[in-house]
Amino acid sequence: MHFASKDLSGAEAYRLLAATVLPRPIALVTTVSAEGVPNAAPFSFFNAMGSKPPVVAMGIEPRPDGAYKDTPANIIETREFVVNLVDEPLADQMNACAATLAPEVNELDEAGLKSIPSLEVAAPRIEASPVSMECKLLQTVDLAGGGSIVIGEVIHFHLQDRIVSSLDPLRIDTGEHNLIGRLSASDYCRTTDRFQLQRPG
Amino acid sequence: MHFASKDLSGAEAYRLLAATVLPRPIALVTTVSAEGVPNAAPFSFFNAMGSKPPVVAMGIEPRPDGAYKDTPANIIETREFVVNLVDEPLADQMNACAATLAPEVNELDEAGLKSIPSLEVAAPRIEASPVSMECKLLQTVDLAGGGSIVIGEVIHFHLQDRIVSSLDPLRIDTGEHNLIGRLSASDYCRTTDRFQLQRPG
Repeated sequence: MHFASKDLSGAEAYRLLAATVLPRPIALVTTVSAEGVPNAAPFSFFNAMGSKPPVVAMGIEPRPDGAYKDTPANIIETREFVVNLVDEPLADQMNACAATLAPEVNELDEAGLKSIPSLEVAAPRIEASPVSMECKLLQTVDLAGGGSIVIGEVIHFHLQDRIVSSLDPLRIDTGEHNLIGRLSASDYCRTTDRFQLQRPG
Repeated sequence: MHFASKDLSGAEAYRLLAATVLPRPIALVTTVSAEGVPNAAPFSFFNAMGSKPPVVAMGIEPRPDGAYKDTPANIIETREFVVNLVDEPLADQMNACAATLAPEVNELDEAGLKSIPSLEVAAPRIEASPVSMECKLLQTVDLAGGGSIVIGEVIHFHLQDRIVSSLDPLRIDTGEHNLIGRLSASDYCRTTDRFQLQRPG
């Protein structure tokens, strides 16, 4: 079975991508508007993209009416955001932040998520997240259909103590942070069913 | 525990990103050089980034000497590549393609991977991959430390018949394609340990 993209609608291409490019890491992104209203929303078209400097990227679809969602609007306005990673205990609250709410509504309050001030950006971070990354906007790439790719430099990493080795603070115990991945439709996966491959020399 | 990125080396930031931004989908990327030599290499700083047009991005670290790896060199030269997704039966061969080989060596042959011609790009696709995406380069974003983000438009999707619903060719049975995810170090995960969340209204 094969499809030329020119014969697919955006919605059809989205279905193919979301059902095949997986498992996807999840960024629960916190921002503040220029008026100071906090916002939180999850994105799974997301990944690290480089380490020098440390860089992450998120692809953000437009709203059905073509307008920016609150997250890219706030990022473009303030040039700052925080990526909070999502483990299984956070799953329901992350999902609650996917609701479409008015810009003046604070998803963090709606979802019962406690936020705490960041050190170098105005957007708060989520206290319960095992890993939070304070980011500055590097660049946006606008797509023809109204979507945007937001590329940010991670300027500060926060790690919960329980996931860090007591011998080496840069050594993360991935068994201690049960991060979840996004599959398609309403499916998510745990990262518990593992195997190892030794990289060739 | 927290770290300002300015106090981290690139290698340290890489360790933090690779151990926390997960599970990551895996792109086994096939390219050809201007001289026609095929190349294949896996990348997990990879994801879909938009659907209109369908877009994927990969973050590619430079070689230790600062030069481009074969994959970005070929993509910049030819402006084309193919993303082949990786399921568990392909895991060992994907890993074999991570070996550092000379540009004139064809990793597909070394890994025993059969390739077949693509329809719209010169780079071949991998026959055993459940999903392959023929891509044209949209844009590269160069990072200060020598890495690059490669952003490509998917112009043609190939899906193995076994993963497609017989009732709806755009409906993918994600239970039929046991795609694997990248964790940190030598760890990978299956996508078998699943749960569901209904998106709020």
